[in-house]
This record gives sequence, structure tokens and C-alpha cells, in this order.
Amino acid sequence: MYLSHGTLTAPDAHADDIRQLLQQIAAATRQEQGCLLYLVSEQLDSPGQFIITEQWASMDDMQTHLAQPAVGEAVAAVHGMGVNDLTITAWEAGQATKVM
Amino acid sequence: MYLSHGTLTAPDAHADDIRQLLQQIAAATRQEQGCLLYLVSEQLDSPGQFIITEQWASMDDMQTHLAQPAVGEAVAAVHGMGVNDLTITAWEAGQATKVM
Repeated sequence: MYLSHGTLTAPDAHADDIRQLLQQIAAATRQEQGCLLYLVSEQLDSPGQFIITEQWASMDDMQTHLAQPAVGEAVAAVHGMGVNDLTITAWEAGQATKVM
Repeated sequence: MYLSHGTLTAPDAHADDIRQLLQQIAAATRQEQGCLLYLVSEQLDSPGQFIITEQWASMDDMQTHLAQPAVGEAVAAVHGMGVNDLTITAWEAGQATKVM
């Protein structure tokens, strides 16, 4: 299983556009093979700073997702709206500990 | 390194209280030893559903954090506000892949 953590900051003028776009991406991606979790959220103490929280069954599934034309279009769209700090890192998940 | 993903849902009557509480917990926890990341966020498509995104240098650091009295008090507080679905899972992080 793979865990992915992504962040991006929206320019004020495009914050609502990006809120909408992220929700569209989430709804579509949740239908994809191997997508175990895809959550889009906004930091409570930093409005306009967004988090993309993903879990994938395999790296192949994640790479298939990333190769979708819609993903490239979405990345181009956020860049076009002035987002210049989009980063996403994935980790292979080791042993899980249920904390609570 | 350890990655932790937590979620909770606030009853409508206490959503603002929990927004405040999570920000207080985040500010305090970011000062703790071994805390590499502690973000609190709200799902864009599910207001009142919150995410706690953590990264810790070691399981010892995370366990030390969890043993703090303030953590127990915060958990009791959210239960007292009617939150009944708080879950947190941590994973040992394997190989990282920078996706974007």
C-alpha cells in the first residue's frame, strides 16, 4: 500500500476555483482502480493551503492514475491559476499501528 | 520516519469548537521533539470532517507525544463534544517517491 501527501497554496483570487477543482478531482479519482482513499482538505490555520491525502493499493495503480490526461490537465489548470508550490510525495507503507 | 493519518467528524453544534481545538493542538504539537509535520484540515466536500496529518521522526517520539496529558485532555474534550469516530493510524514510512 502507498500513502501520498500533497500540498498546494492557492492565490487568493483563485481559492474558490481551486476548492472546486480539487473536489472534482477527488470525485473522479475515487472511482479509479486501486484508489483506497483520496481526500482533499484545507488547513484550518492557513486558508488557501490545501492538502491531498491519498492511499493506493500499489505504485502501478498510482502511476496509472498520474498518467491520466485529466491529471495533466488539472496540474496545468492549477499552474495557470498561479499555484507554484504543488508538491506530492508518496511512501510505501510499512507496518501500521492503530493509535486511536 | 512515521506517517500518521487521523480523522474525526464534528457534530454541527461543536464544529467551531473543534476547529479551534485542533488548531491549538497543532500549534503545541509542532513544538514537540521529533514532530516533523502536524497539519489539521477540513475536508472540502464534507464540512465538519477533519483530518490530522502527522509525520514523526520515530515511533518513540510519537508515543511520547501521545502520552502527554494535553493529548488525553484533548481526546476527552472531543469525546465530550460528541465526536464518536476519532481514529488515527500510523505507518512506518518506506521508500519515498517524489511524485510532483
